[in-house]
Amino acid sequence: MRGLWIEDGAVRLRDDLPAPEPTSGSTRVRVTCAGVCATDLALRRGYMGFTGVPGHEFVGIAIDGPRAGQRVVGDINAGCGSCQSCREEQGHHCPDRTVLGIMGRAGAFAEELLLPDRNLIFVPDHVTDDVAVFTEPLAAAFEIVEQVPMTGQRALVAGDGRLGLLIAKVLALAGCEVTCAGRHPERAAMLPNGARHATGVLESAPTERTYDLAVEATGDPEALPRLVGHVRPRGTIVLKTTAERPTTLDLAPFVVDEITVIGSRCGPFDRAIHALAAGAIDPLPLVEARYPLADAVEAMDHAGRGGVLKVLVDG
Amino acid sequence: MRGLWIEDGAVRLRDDLPAPEPTSGSTRVRVTCAGVCATDLALRRGYMGFTGVPGHEFVGIAIDGPRAGQRVVGDINAGCGSCQSCREEQGHHCPDRTVLGIMGRAGAFAEELLLPDRNLIFVPDHVTDDVAVFTEPLAAAFEIVEQVPMTGQRALVAGDGRLGLLIAKVLALAGCEVTCAGRHPERAAMLPNGARHATGVLESAPTERTYDLAVEATGDPEALPRLVGHVRPRGTIVLKTTAERPTTLDLAPFVVDEITVIGSRCGPFDRAIHALAAGAIDPLPLVEARYPLADAVEAMDHAGRGGVLKVLVDG
Repeated sequence: MRGLWIEDGAVRLRDDLPAPEPTSGSTRVRVTCAGVCATDLALRRGYMGFTGVPGHEFVGIAIDGPRAGQRVVGDINAGCGSCQSCREEQGHHCPDRTVLGIMGRAGAFAEELLLPDRNLIFVPDHVTDDVAVFTEPLAAAFEIVEQVPMTGQRALVAGDGRLGLLIAKVLALAGCEVTCAGRHPERAAMLPNGARHATGVLESAPTERTYDLAVEATGDPEALPRLVGHVRPRGTIVLKTTAERPTTLDLAPFVVDEITVIGSRCGPFDRAIHALAAGAIDPLPLVEARYPLADAVEAMDHAGRGGVLKVLVDG
Repeated sequence: MRGLWIEDGAVRLRDDLPAPEPTSGSTRVRVTCAGVCATDLALRRGYMGFTGVPGHEFVGIAIDGPRAGQRVVGDINAGCGSCQSCREEQGHHCPDRTVLGIMGRAGAFAEELLLPDRNLIFVPDHVTDDVAVFTEPLAAAFEIVEQVPMTGQRALVAGDGRLGLLIAKVLALAGCEVTCAGRHPERAAMLPNGARHATGVLESAPTERTYDLAVEATGDPEALPRLVGHVRPRGTIVLKTTAERPTTLDLAPFVVDEITVIGSRCGPFDRAIHALAAGAIDPLPLVEARYPLADAVEAMDHAGRGGVLKVLVDG
């Protein structure tokens, strides 16, 4: 079958990939739409030494299994199914897990993919592919709300990119007073009612420690040290982006001000698709370009340019 | 009056220090015993550019104020008294606070000190000075229990020094299964029943991610990156020591494993003195040496040698 292939820090289209084999307990999915994420771009640059088919934001049609013929999205973490993490937290931290298009499992930039049956979630008819393909990044945004009790915080979202905008929407929905900091003032229009956009926030010394909660979604490993000064004592910083380079950090302010830093990765896929289906979150303004699978390398090039929002690959 | 004086990264004894002036709302305290802490040693090396009298672990006798004549210990954070932090959290994060012997307020290695009346706590007669002088570091250990819900965690205390041993005692009291990691196997005898001592834990790659909770109490800025591999996914790391040098940190594992890192500073002084008065914590085995105030420079030298436990200075 056709699909993207990353090897030795380069990406190319292949037509000779083996299609997934029918497997008991797993479902083959014909991918109808997939989204390009910053992690895909990092994998292309050699992050985690990844070799294989990238792609983990998808919607498709189940070819076999209990949902055969249905439109589905899916949790990208495929755990062993029996450990404590699999029993209690969807296998997101199963030590033996594979992760679609990221770790040990071929991903979504291909004609077909394979996931455990239990990972797949039905997509209601009225939710278009272009909306449903946002389930994975939106679930990652909802993970913050599952980790941090929501108490109407003043929240700073650092980054007005693909993920930052989704996080701003989720936090506003959860009752936060949201400021989204980034380099694209024109994206103020994409923020939910009541949220504000701010430029230059992370580039200058803070005058006031205003925020109860800050979310790092810039992808810049130097963002965390700059965020500390914006958060009130005993405030919380959530790390959403997995930086490829190490950060040099003075830990003393974290101790003196008793700051909590929480790493945050994949989230609740069911909650995300429910929010999309209910129209509570509209991700469509984030779609910037689309390419057929035949031009998926070009789609990655496009997504890798500075300041680009969501690029989709149609199956 | 007599007291220690730090200036330009050096410490000396002075006999010409001004005694605190009687001040409305504040109490003068004649210091009877003070303990040397790692922070004092850092201040001596120039940390925070401190100039003044160091010392923040003390017990003494109130000279004036509402507790005149009583033996007292005291919260070292002197806030404005009216801001939100002062109203809700003992001023520990008051932006205008001074901190005894650390920031903007002369400390306890002197004949007398001055603190707001409201900071002072009565010491019951049966609690000796040598026990009561541990109130401040023990309160810092109890802060962990106030920040992290205690659920019978498997806890790793990194560091078997002065603070690490107190933290091990507090966590054991709170129902944790405690392992204290450090370089002094002979200190196993100082750990509470059921707690174990382990050497080489932080120096070698972890074979298993065993711990729900880890507490950094080594003073080594390189300890945090090494602790990550010992904590289970979604586990918690508490930072207790304020390192003087920056740390180089790969943040990706914190995100992927959704680790929570919590900075932790001063704690509940009342809870600490209650635990000491009830005999729930016995700090006396930690006392390693004592010096009169006239020899306080020597006391600091002694405390600064590797592997030394608590050094006291008698007023």
